[in-house]
Amino acid sequence: MITRLSSLFLRTLREDPADAEVPSHKLLVRAGFIRRAAPGVYSWLPLGLRTLRKIEDVVREEMTAIGGQELLFPALLPREPYETTGRWTEYGDDLFRLKDRRDVDMLLGPTHEEMFTSTVKDMYSSYKDFPVTLFQIQTKYRDEARPRAGILRGREFVMKDSYSFDMSDAGLDESYAQHRAAYQRVFDRLGIEYVICQATSGAMGGSASEEFLAVSPTGEDTFVRSTDGSYAANVEAVVTQPGVEKPIEGQPEAVEHDTPDAETIETLVDWANSAGVTVDGRAVTAADTLKCIVAKVTGPGAEEPELLGVLVPGDREVDMKRLEASLEPAAVELASDEDFAKSSFLVKGYVGPRGLAANGVRVLADPRVVSGTSWITGADAKNRHVVGLVAGRDFTPDGHIEAAEVREGDPAPEGQGSLTLARGIEIGHIFQLGRKYTEAFDVQILDENGKRAVPTMGSYGIGVSRLMAVLAEQNHDDKGLNWPVEVAPYQVHVAVANKDAAAMEAGDKLVNELDAVGIEVLFDDRPKVSPGVKFKDAELLGVPFAAILGRSFADGIIELRIRGGETLEVPADEIVARLKELVRG
Amino acid sequence: MITRLSSLFLRTLREDPADAEVPSHKLLVRAGFIRRAAPGVYSWLPLGLRTLRKIEDVVREEMTAIGGQELLFPALLPREPYETTGRWTEYGDDLFRLKDRRDVDMLLGPTHEEMFTSTVKDMYSSYKDFPVTLFQIQTKYRDEARPRAGILRGREFVMKDSYSFDMSDAGLDESYAQHRAAYQRVFDRLGIEYVICQATSGAMGGSASEEFLAVSPTGEDTFVRSTDGSYAANVEAVVTQPGVEKPIEGQPEAVEHDTPDAETIETLVDWANSAGVTVDGRAVTAADTLKCIVAKVTGPGAEEPELLGVLVPGDREVDMKRLEASLEPAAVELASDEDFAKSSFLVKGYVGPRGLAANGVRVLADPRVVSGTSWITGADAKNRHVVGLVAGRDFTPDGHIEAAEVREGDPAPEGQGSLTLARGIEIGHIFQLGRKYTEAFDVQILDENGKRAVPTMGSYGIGVSRLMAVLAEQNHDDKGLNWPVEVAPYQVHVAVANKDAAAMEAGDKLVNELDAVGIEVLFDDRPKVSPGVKFKDAELLGVPFAAILGRSFADGIIELRIRGGETLEVPADEIVARLKELVRG
Repeated sequence: MITRLSSLFLRTLREDPADAEVPSHKLLVRAGFIRRAAPGVYSWLPLGLRTLRKIEDVVREEMTAIGGQELLFPALLPREPYETTGRWTEYGDDLFRLKDRRDVDMLLGPTHEEMFTSTVKDMYSSYKDFPVTLFQIQTKYRDEARPRAGILRGREFVMKDSYSFDMSDAGLDESYAQHRAAYQRVFDRLGIEYVICQATSGAMGGSASEEFLAVSPTGEDTFVRSTDGSYAANVEAVVTQPGVEKPIEGQPEAVEHDTPDAETIETLVDWANSAGVTVDGRAVTAADTLKCIVAKVTGPGAEEPELLGVLVPGDREVDMKRLEASLEPAAVELASDEDFAKSSFLVKGYVGPRGLAANGVRVLADPRVVSGTSWITGADAKNRHVVGLVAGRDFTPDGHIEAAEVREGDPAPEGQGSLTLARGIEIGHIFQLGRKYTEAFDVQILDENGKRAVPTMGSYGIGVSRLMAVLAEQNHDDKGLNWPVEVAPYQVHVAVANKDAAAMEAGDKLVNELDAVGIEVLFDDRPKVSPGVKFKDAELLGVPFAAILGRSFADGIIELRIRGGETLEVPADEIVARLKELVRG
Repeated sequence: MITRLSSLFLRTLREDPADAEVPSHKLLVRAGFIRRAAPGVYSWLPLGLRTLRKIEDVVREEMTAIGGQELLFPALLPREPYETTGRWTEYGDDLFRLKDRRDVDMLLGPTHEEMFTSTVKDMYSSYKDFPVTLFQIQTKYRDEARPRAGILRGREFVMKDSYSFDMSDAGLDESYAQHRAAYQRVFDRLGIEYVICQATSGAMGGSASEEFLAVSPTGEDTFVRSTDGSYAANVEAVVTQPGVEKPIEGQPEAVEHDTPDAETIETLVDWANSAGVTVDGRAVTAADTLKCIVAKVTGPGAEEPELLGVLVPGDREVDMKRLEASLEPAAVELASDEDFAKSSFLVKGYVGPRGLAANGVRVLADPRVVSGTSWITGADAKNRHVVGLVAGRDFTPDGHIEAAEVREGDPAPEGQGSLTLARGIEIGHIFQLGRKYTEAFDVQILDENGKRAVPTMGSYGIGVSRLMAVLAEQNHDDKGLNWPVEVAPYQVHVAVANKDAAAMEAGDKLVNELDAVGIEVLFDDRPKVSPGVKFKDAELLGVPFAAILGRSFADGIIELRIRGGETLEVPADEIVARLKELVRG
């Protein structure tokens, strides 16, 4: 097919849009792929729609290859199924809710576990129908608090969601593995640089869960990789290497001290060193102190929050995202000054594990706080700290929790070297959901023995429209976009940059020849546009291969510019063959 | 491609769904093409999605062929552009409105004139960019008061909407003509029986407007056709042949009579004939009386309704839909008993044109009420009527109005015979919108002379998901569906109805051979399903050609069943060639 720039519905922009911060947002708007309609809501202009559909096709092919069957649920959904699973409420403000003309509650689907589960329940009743994997590529809605970066995090977006239903846990493992492989093929075909991270499963519930993160400095997710490359995890999912236990016997007794004006870790360390306190004969550092954070935790269905003490080594902050992930689905916030005022045993700057425990507050500690480790920490009274408080002797946490920040250089699990931090964009997520939804909908299937059994589910998502932004993030330079040939809106860009009528005629002939061999061509046939503008537009739009009929055309030479690569001078009679070769890869 | 029934996500139903009344709804649900999610909201199961996509592709091809450029606007839209055109309010309860988490008003797009117009305004500024035709194939939302018949009238549905922008009226005529031809090609390719009807333009405003109606007894729209086939119109758009004017001079004077208990046309005619009144020497019929209807009309922006008198020959009812269409965009209702009670000159059963006019009520008459016609009608007092009231002498209407019912046998306009009535389903609508929207958005384009000009628009729609229901309505029998090959979910259905292992092997070989020549095959490979059930399912699903490996397979014969047609016995070694021939048409 041939599309002529002289009639294409397109206006490229030389200036970045005012609200754009990241490269993909700037370039996709400037190149006329997308256009903002409302915050987090974008229109797909002709070039953008072509690339979006090609990305969808790659995803569709790989889903079909693992036996996925495509269907399509509505986006406008009734409340009841989401009430059945509690998500009508749990989704909070992220859910677009509306009422129809009869005042009936409805919602715009953010993800469709409920619809798939209830449909399988209605249609299938025997183990013979399983396993089954269903998917859809659909416009979804989430009322993001902070829609950002164009289509990177939109409120209306295209997602591929699929769901596997298996009669056995081994079957689920198999379905999960198939999806994992299919996702790798999708992202590999698109040429995306990505990592597969161990993830927490978030609000979805379930057990095994991995995230596919595209590596990008503009990503919102921080992940870690081991230096040997064998381990990657979402920061929320990083498992801290436990501390080394020490014998309690022989350790000096805990001693309380007056520590005036030592309410911060820094001032506490200063006090300790000025008071001559040492640890194993060396000066005290922040890592020898124990930070006691007081949080308020509201479990699902609970009306009142409960206090929770969180202990982390004093040289680390509490990472609220990690803390939240550890306590999910409960909601967490730090205790406020008012909360401190309400409980006389909470003395700001001097909270310690003994005071919390004595007052019935549950205490969870960082995995480095193991039996026999000795700490300098609060003594639960104004201007008082305690030195030599030994875990397992002077205090015993109720359990461990992943709440401390992860740092570059922290040891990776199981001797895989140390951790490095990087940023990524979530492009896929695979979950072993288990029976959470099939139980909620009471899905009963007759097994081989004629007994009722509840199938187990997997839930798998790819952010299809987001992938377009990711491709733009990973494939651009300061001049414009640079699409992988598989999803480029067109495979070849032909520009006539020569006022000679013969050049325009030759251009016309060339695009028809390319079309005849099945190449999709964007033809810059604009008669009154300067070569400079044509070159700039070609670079901005990012079609991977451009054939320029320019100055050297008179000598029978066509310039072949590989976007982001070299420029070749090709004799006019060889250009079709060369382009065919390049496009076919 | 090959899909095996043994694993296809499908459960056919023997019983009609309880809420289904029309054949397409019953059969599409029973055959597992669609499934209800909420009133007027349906899921597309694998077979239904395949057919839907194929219909979309036909529409897309024909739109592209007339130079239409595809893009895709969001379904979730901001309020402002719809406020600019007044449609935020005008749409009334049909519009799904919602608020986002910041309490900002949004809507689900019912049609996208506003978005297209404002986008063209932002992107284009010179006449050189015109004409341009843009289209999208999109999920749309209307909160129908009475969603019905499955996907025939849904609240979430797929529509192709396109918009042409031209600098001149002649250009709009050309764009309109191109769309008209493209629509004919779409519906012809799908084999739909349809008529193109002159239509009123409804809430869209604008001038030329035609509807494409699929002929179907289950249609909600009534249309008329002339007996010579040259004229078709929506009932709302039928133009009444005017009556023949008569000389006023020489006609007897109007005479009032006591007419006790003659409040209806029937009792009035009885009274006239018993009182010896005659018309041109013959007995009085209802057509000699004049019915005076009092309506309340509320214009756009008006706070109070105004009274309106509507005069129609007494043998015809007022057709409220026609009356509404004539007065659009004003809202109309009949005057209530309370309204009669409020105005002493309104005497129920005795209202006449003189009393209305004398009291300042505007009076509009049926086109048959022309100068010199003489009528028996109310005399504006209890138990009083007047005989011989002559139009143009005793009363003069303020104008004419199309409000009377249209009847089978009424004369067609311009000597095209008489009218017959039929029912149809609106499948397409083309409008010449004019400058209503471009003016609302103040679209200013520089013309050839460097002067600012406002482009003129056309708006064109095809109900894509509705087409699937229409195809089912027009192509089914009591056994099931019967798809045209172009949009059938599969082209060939292969069923093994023979327990012999050789038959299953041969079936497997056959489907692979068909796949190798590019035929899409649905393979009924279910091992434990009886031949009877397989035949029933094949008929229900409606794949146009079925190859059955049944009893005669032992003799080398495969049954070729043409859905809704004959059954042929084909030697096994000829079946692929025969099917290829049939599929390629």
